[in-house]
Amino acid sequence: MRVLVIGGDGYCGWATALYLSNHGHDVGILDNLVRRHWDAQLQVETLTPIAPIQTRLQRWTDLTGKSIDLFVGDINDYPFLESAMRQFQPEAVVHFGEQRSAPFSMIDREHAVLTQVNNVVGTLNLLYVIRDHFPDCHLVKLGTMGEYGTPNIDIEEGYITIEHNGRKDTLPYPKQPGSFYHLSKVHDSHNIHFACKIWGLRATDLNQGVVYGVLTEETGMDEVLINRLDYDGVFGTALNRFCIQAAVDHPLTVYGKGGQTRAFLDIRDTVRCVELAVANPAKSGEFRVFNQFTEMFSVGDLAAMVKKAGSAMGMKVEINHLDNPRVEAEEHYFNAKNTNLLDLGLHPHYLSDSLLDSLLNFAVKYKQRVDHAQILPRVKWRR
Amino acid sequence: MRVLVIGGDGYCGWATALYLSNHGHDVGILDNLVRRHWDAQLQVETLTPIAPIQTRLQRWTDLTGKSIDLFVGDINDYPFLESAMRQFQPEAVVHFGEQRSAPFSMIDREHAVLTQVNNVVGTLNLLYVIRDHFPDCHLVKLGTMGEYGTPNIDIEEGYITIEHNGRKDTLPYPKQPGSFYHLSKVHDSHNIHFACKIWGLRATDLNQGVVYGVLTEETGMDEVLINRLDYDGVFGTALNRFCIQAAVDHPLTVYGKGGQTRAFLDIRDTVRCVELAVANPAKSGEFRVFNQFTEMFSVGDLAAMVKKAGSAMGMKVEINHLDNPRVEAEEHYFNAKNTNLLDLGLHPHYLSDSLLDSLLNFAVKYKQRVDHAQILPRVKWRR
Repeated sequence: MRVLVIGGDGYCGWATALYLSNHGHDVGILDNLVRRHWDAQLQVETLTPIAPIQTRLQRWTDLTGKSIDLFVGDINDYPFLESAMRQFQPEAVVHFGEQRSAPFSMIDREHAVLTQVNNVVGTLNLLYVIRDHFPDCHLVKLGTMGEYGTPNIDIEEGYITIEHNGRKDTLPYPKQPGSFYHLSKVHDSHNIHFACKIWGLRATDLNQGVVYGVLTEETGMDEVLINRLDYDGVFGTALNRFCIQAAVDHPLTVYGKGGQTRAFLDIRDTVRCVELAVANPAKSGEFRVFNQFTEMFSVGDLAAMVKKAGSAMGMKVEINHLDNPRVEAEEHYFNAKNTNLLDLGLHPHYLSDSLLDSLLNFAVKYKQRVDHAQILPRVKWRR
Repeated sequence: MRVLVIGGDGYCGWATALYLSNHGHDVGILDNLVRRHWDAQLQVETLTPIAPIQTRLQRWTDLTGKSIDLFVGDINDYPFLESAMRQFQPEAVVHFGEQRSAPFSMIDREHAVLTQVNNVVGTLNLLYVIRDHFPDCHLVKLGTMGEYGTPNIDIEEGYITIEHNGRKDTLPYPKQPGSFYHLSKVHDSHNIHFACKIWGLRATDLNQGVVYGVLTEETGMDEVLINRLDYDGVFGTALNRFCIQAAVDHPLTVYGKGGQTRAFLDIRDTVRCVELAVANPAKSGEFRVFNQFTEMFSVGDLAAMVKKAGSAMGMKVEINHLDNPRVEAEEHYFNAKNTNLLDLGLHPHYLSDSLLDSLLNFAVKYKQRVDHAQILPRVKWRR
């Protein structure tokens, strides 16, 4: 299939684009490269040295004989988006092209507004260009498990059947997101749902958990194809950050009590989940929601696992409980369903000692690149 | 109390500003006057000839001895908003200042984007200025009953208690809005809820039904204070539009079967509901939701009532069922709760024959101003 990966220069997008290309799809990448610019502005850097996009793509072609089309530009620029789509003629669009950090969105008013306008308008533009030129194109949109927050009942996949005063209906699952970033994804979900209903578009919302890991079969083929790995207080996510902290003898930074439970998955499952969604498109008019994760852990559990794995490798790993910079429940019920992707054939990579060993070894390999000043959280939710 | 009415030059805002001023509050109006500009661009006009804002305010002072501060500018312009708020020092802000037409938001991509960016960013700016300078200020925000859509269960006021798999929680009521405008209000609700939670702000979301009527005690004091009355296909709402159509011998334009049931209220109750909300502020950290309406009618019922009242006055009223330009259920369950405002002391004005007589007479008085070309819907939900 012809698949356009929007945001294909990013952490999940790059791994996905190469995976789909390797598995026989005709892949295009559309990216405005702004994430590299934000890194520079925030003075943070991926642990791993990533190559420029044109170098990455040339190496991919040299290694595999496959080529990936590149469209550099912003989906907030409608004429550009329209022209790129008409040139590429996608059968499916995988949309990773959003500002994806909760702390980034909480820096100040300007970053909150940037995040919501960038994400909401980009997705609106995509809905209109699909409506006008590719009404059968399947939109595979990255959402987040964070849209649900931490309700005291089981989290279903996008919808819940409610019995109330003797009547019954299946309605969108209530959302309680925890940052202006997570809110932007909730806004997107509502907008896409509506577009499917009125225009008959087909869309799959992948409510993804926290992704960990750095190697996929494709990005591991060559150092030039290496994926980014963030450990800073703005873009770094829990498990990856802990492994890097362990590698440089920095105490693991657990926010608050650490009882915050979240959904997680290996990046090798991210790419496979996207392929499953692409290969099994939603029906016309259907707004389908998959919860894309494989396991649930508390942040404290993760820190303990990294400490154990690190100790077995001779590292001295400490765990620090920081004042929580976020506003979130630190002890709560959390039980989310994830059967839709398993039913389509996902065979999860579970978090294991060997994965932790490999992540820790990866972190050790690049530890000379770590800037300690980037590790601690600098953005607070409360004023 | 010192109350700033954002959007105070509009239909609901103007009536509210005068009512609050008349009832002893210190009132300011903040408005960018863009609605008058949009009317010009769309080549539509209110039935009633409205005076320029400065003329309106001067007449109000001449008649009552009360003055209303005026701030002309856009809440999307943060420095302007911040400066106006610091000058006025509000204890409550009533926020009507959004693009409020569903058809307007469905004209094309540009109008959808304009509506969502204008409404979402304006409200985000307001949340930040309140956080930074007036943390105790009560935000009274106009939402809409259209946020709920038409679920097959009773509609509660903002939240619903759900029992699921043996556990229970009270969660935000699921939203199924029917236009990019209604979606913008859902986005606002989520953003405001979050701001209350993390910053301890106090907010009341007034999910208002369709407003009808034109006279309030204050706007009826003098022709220069007259309120706008829209009958065009973009800004005109059901009952007002039907009365004007009857007055000019135009068939009433019922979209589709007319079984669409909605919540309604008299504009004299709009102003009273806002006063009740202002006088009884939400608690710090509380995101309170009131369903602001008094009665439910189907569009077909309304048309029949106007036909009956018009016939009694000697008018020949026909009802036309047009192809529905919107995508919406035309036969559905609809039962919404509205006890919160009644508990605070609202005594509703119910839709009556005498109200219909008065609205019809009003329409007859200004019928020479009607432009027939504006009446039919020009905006379609489907492509």
